Amino acid sequence: MSYIMHDSQNTWFRNPFGAVETGRDITLKIEGDDIDEAYLNLIYPSGENRSVRMNKEQKVQYPNTFVFSTTINTGDRRGLIFYSFTIKQYGRVFFYGNNQEFLGGEGKIYNNNPISYQITVYRECESPKWYKEGIVYQIFVDRFFNGNECCKIENPKSNSFIYARWDDRPMYIKNNDGSIVRWDFYGGNLLGVIKKLGYLHELGVTAIYFNPIFEASSSHRYDTGDYKKIDPMFGDEDIFKKLCVEAEKLGIHIILDGVFSHTGSDSIYFNKYGNYDSVGAYQSKESPYYEWYQFSYYPDKYECWWGIGNQPNVNELVPSYLDYIIYDKDSVINKWMNLGADGWRLDVADELPDKFIKELKKEMKKNKKDSVLIGEVWEDASNKVSYGSRREYLYGDELDSTMNYPFRDDVIGFLLGNIDSRMFIRKMMSLKENYPRENFYSMMNMLGTHDTERILTVFENNRSRQDAVKLLKIAVAIQMTLPGVPHIYYGDEVGVTGGKDPDNRSTYPWGKEDNDILSHYKKMLRIRTRSTCLKKGELRFYGTDYDVIAFERYYKNEKVITVVNRNLSSSKNITLDILEGEYENMLTEKKEVLDSKTSIKVGPAEIKILKLLIDKRINILGINS
Amino acid sequence: MSYIMHDSQNTWFRNPFGAVETGRDITLKIEGDDIDEAYLNLIYPSGENRSVRMNKEQKVQYPNTFVFSTTINTGDRRGLIFYSFTIKQYGRVFFYGNNQEFLGGEGKIYNNNPISYQITVYRECESPKWYKEGIVYQIFVDRFFNGNECCKIENPKSNSFIYARWDDRPMYIKNNDGSIVRWDFYGGNLLGVIKKLGYLHELGVTAIYFNPIFEASSSHRYDTGDYKKIDPMFGDEDIFKKLCVEAEKLGIHIILDGVFSHTGSDSIYFNKYGNYDSVGAYQSKESPYYEWYQFSYYPDKYECWWGIGNQPNVNELVPSYLDYIIYDKDSVINKWMNLGADGWRLDVADELPDKFIKELKKEMKKNKKDSVLIGEVWEDASNKVSYGSRREYLYGDELDSTMNYPFRDDVIGFLLGNIDSRMFIRKMMSLKENYPRENFYSMMNMLGTHDTERILTVFENNRSRQDAVKLLKIAVAIQMTLPGVPHIYYGDEVGVTGGKDPDNRSTYPWGKEDNDILSHYKKMLRIRTRSTCLKKGELRFYGTDYDVIAFERYYKNEKVITVVNRNLSSSKNITLDILEGEYENMLTEKKEVLDSKTSIKVGPAEIKILKLLIDKRINILGINS
Repeated sequence: MSYIMHDSQNTWFRNPFGAVETGRDITLKIEGDDIDEAYLNLIYPSGENRSVRMNKEQKVQYPNTFVFSTTINTGDRRGLIFYSFTIKQYGRVFFYGNNQEFLGGEGKIYNNNPISYQITVYRECESPKWYKEGIVYQIFVDRFFNGNECCKIENPKSNSFIYARWDDRPMYIKNNDGSIVRWDFYGGNLLGVIKKLGYLHELGVTAIYFNPIFEASSSHRYDTGDYKKIDPMFGDEDIFKKLCVEAEKLGIHIILDGVFSHTGSDSIYFNKYGNYDSVGAYQSKESPYYEWYQFSYYPDKYECWWGIGNQPNVNELVPSYLDYIIYDKDSVINKWMNLGADGWRLDVADELPDKFIKELKKEMKKNKKDSVLIGEVWEDASNKVSYGSRREYLYGDELDSTMNYPFRDDVIGFLLGNIDSRMFIRKMMSLKENYPRENFYSMMNMLGTHDTERILTVFENNRSRQDAVKLLKIAVAIQMTLPGVPHIYYGDEVGVTGGKDPDNRSTYPWGKEDNDILSHYKKMLRIRTRSTCLKKGELRFYGTDYDVIAFERYYKNEKVITVVNRNLSSSKNITLDILEGEYENMLTEKKEVLDSKTSIKVGPAEIKILKLLIDKRINILGINS
Repeated sequence: MSYIMHDSQNTWFRNPFGAVETGRDITLKIEGDDIDEAYLNLIYPSGENRSVRMNKEQKVQYPNTFVFSTTINTGDRRGLIFYSFTIKQYGRVFFYGNNQEFLGGEGKIYNNNPISYQITVYRECESPKWYKEGIVYQIFVDRFFNGNECCKIENPKSNSFIYARWDDRPMYIKNNDGSIVRWDFYGGNLLGVIKKLGYLHELGVTAIYFNPIFEASSSHRYDTGDYKKIDPMFGDEDIFKKLCVEAEKLGIHIILDGVFSHTGSDSIYFNKYGNYDSVGAYQSKESPYYEWYQFSYYPDKYECWWGIGNQPNVNELVPSYLDYIIYDKDSVINKWMNLGADGWRLDVADELPDKFIKELKKEMKKNKKDSVLIGEVWEDASNKVSYGSRREYLYGDELDSTMNYPFRDDVIGFLLGNIDSRMFIRKMMSLKENYPRENFYSMMNMLGTHDTERILTVFENNRSRQDAVKLLKIAVAIQMTLPGVPHIYYGDEVGVTGGKDPDNRSTYPWGKEDNDILSHYKKMLRIRTRSTCLKKGELRFYGTDYDVIAFERYYKNEKVITVVNRNLSSSKNITLDILEGEYENMLTEKKEVLDSKTSIKVGPAEIKILKLLIDKRINILGINS
């Protein structure tokens, strides 16, 4: 078949780039040899289908090549516009659509059923500056630090276990049927976090995302017992307030985990075991909480999260639940924001109705304009379908940010050799294309969480620790120089290892830190936090060797180039089309003078972060005149 | 068949009663109607068989009844003499032997293969007075009391769990294959015992039997890691010494658990995990401990206790083991006795060679003349067969005492209605007959241990707690008034409940004691400890109602009669052939004047303990003259 091309990520073919606000025009082009007619097929967020005959022009200097173009308006409805092309050539009809990986960019010819391209249509929204230009540190409180004198454990839960030593490996204590018999605690608490704020500040952290801190039976606390009470093992309201005040003094914001798709069965609301004074839904149909839950056979059969009986699902849209969590003056979100919280991470956002998220966002912003809402979404959040419906996460009234698991997958995939640099770039570009810019720059880019294996352990698989550490350092360099908010899972910065849950939730090894890893983190965080360009700058990838990722960030006069070589044994010579000038290698703090089209040698596992000092061509910085 | 009778427990038929020392004569008789000839068939401890024709006499005043008698000498060999009779009557030959339950007393005619009677032949031995007239209290140290400030737990073991609360229910943390993954601790320690010595003293306790206190990985410490070191969670040598000193001041002796049939795999000796500095048997065949163990495939297959891999069996008779445990000046038993221990309880005595027990006893007595050796034997220890051999436990050079599990079984059997009072008496009499007197009076009579369900729980089965407590009180009354050393498993005296291991090892509920039960224990202990008669007196059972057990203890002028009615709803009228006189009901402290052949009413679940005050007939006490 002859030449035919649309590249959604090339503004010659689609302009403007990526996600577009409502009411804006987009020009779309397709070109090819000997094409008679081309139609743009559109599906709008409303579900409306339209096919538009495109304007035909001959391409300058290419006698057989024709360019077809049309301009559409995004309209007033937020959502996704899908498009593909119908082509007539030599009396035949065929199609052009997105590539099979649905990654955007260059597409593909189809005889029928073309895969569509996506245009995300959103309404303008803004993430708070402190968040999108910050560094997030995630703390699983029980495992971080026990701030009590003599490591005393206050208010231990009945019929639970305390690990004998801080450095014991975590484990679940299970019945033969796999259910948890007793919960296991180390005894970390909020006082411990307060005592370590200095450490976090020095590291460069500007926000803490806490795994749940409200009263619950389990050690993970995702089975909330009382949304309005700090877990007594963690502390109390006064300590929480103090934590927020002390953190604020150091410029650190507090983000809480909002677990609103289910409660604990051992809770004020459900009260299965009668441990609370309340009349719970389990105890009586007259309970004020009865309507929150869905019983198939009262009281013992009820809908629960992933079939786990200690986490009964709630009907999030029941008015009394909305009041309790969102609308009341002293609702859960208002209460904790009034006490100092600056945002929420929504647990299992996929399980929450769009309306619930929007209402929560609205109330949250009403309470605190520069608060942040982050969703737990494991895939591309712009086009996520859950329970048969397209989810509305990133259209402006919903999430500011999601946990960027695709970022983690792709960094790991590249560094483990499962994908090459080209595929890494395509995947990153696909997110950049699909996400509204504000969201793309607010993605929580993490290498690990309480729900994944520890990043160092991922790299250690069949590899020496030494080699794994090299890969970890590359991963951190990528994380700290790409757009998105770098996230550190407590302990990753000091080489904590651990396989799947619960092994990934071991304690922070105070006094036994891996200082080599820590100093790399510190260096990379310093580079990130001191560079406006890395926080806000545009992103451009270079095509290079399959083992090498290279990209530049630019913002006004500033430019930072990151080059990493995943190969642990070979150097790579790459050529970058960069500005001729003087650069500082920010890791080695040495100067390098580079030509345009210069050849750069990148050693095994080497990381180069090059900051433009003097632009030889245009002398932007006015020094070399 | 016509009348024929031998009753081994009636001195008219066999004299003297019961077990007999070496070199003594015993007269044995059998009588019956129209018997022509009778032969006594004997099997001596040497294995020698003999048949002796018995002397025939006509019974005075019974023209058809003949009495056959013979006198034998027990010889110089300790062990068991078995005997039965061959009878010739009307030209027929048949046999007379022990009853089918092998309980002694009245026997039974057999056409062939008669079951033999037993005569235990022993050499004189003496148990220490403090022990045989004392009260033993068993402490599972981890569960008794944490004496540290703020209940701090010193030296917790790595990868183990601490119960979050003192009153949590105990449990094992197991793998799917049933093996223990991690050990569970509450944090009781020797300092805690020191702090509670006053409580024990007030209760009436005169000896503590400790479950193992030497270093080990597990919470039960039967997997010894170092025989010469106090477990660091329990304390150290100084604390042990102090405990012995403080206990002695209160007249309390210390008995240790000697676990000598196996060590821990995590030990100085085996060192499977390399946790010790030593070269263990598992690590090298050059290990000084290599010969202690039996490897079938070095180093991973080895003999272990009940197939439990963390408890490898030792060859107890290997010289270096004998030296280490017994003979060395600083051997295990010498070390701890020099530091204050007054005796040993031998774990799984059935697994220890006779020679090991005898050598240990010899060394122990050399170190401390009035020390005590108690064996863990679950059956009648006089005729126990283990691993195909008759065991030598009670022949004078071995155990002073065994844990009297038959006593427990029979008290429970009677109180639960599984056996009637007659069978209870037969079983007690069988022990009385088979055990040397010194041993019978030194039996450790317990209602529960760390290896059984809690006694209150046994009684609670399908019964209200109220009723169970009534049965418990009866059991305690029997225990405190029969011969043998009353033993209390920590917490039984305050109503602690618990099913099978580990539920029977829950903590002592300080501050939450059942004071009703405690006051009964205190009263019964006071009665016991103040009565020479109950400590040393002879025992005579009365035959009464099947629901009632009645027996008297007598010593010189003193007499105490115990009557208990297991029936929870009916009173029983019984007639006792007792001394006419004035009695004190020691529980109610009321006086009762009774006639000989008096009829006594015993209410539902009533306990009467009657102490003779004034003997009307012979006026022994010289008051009523």
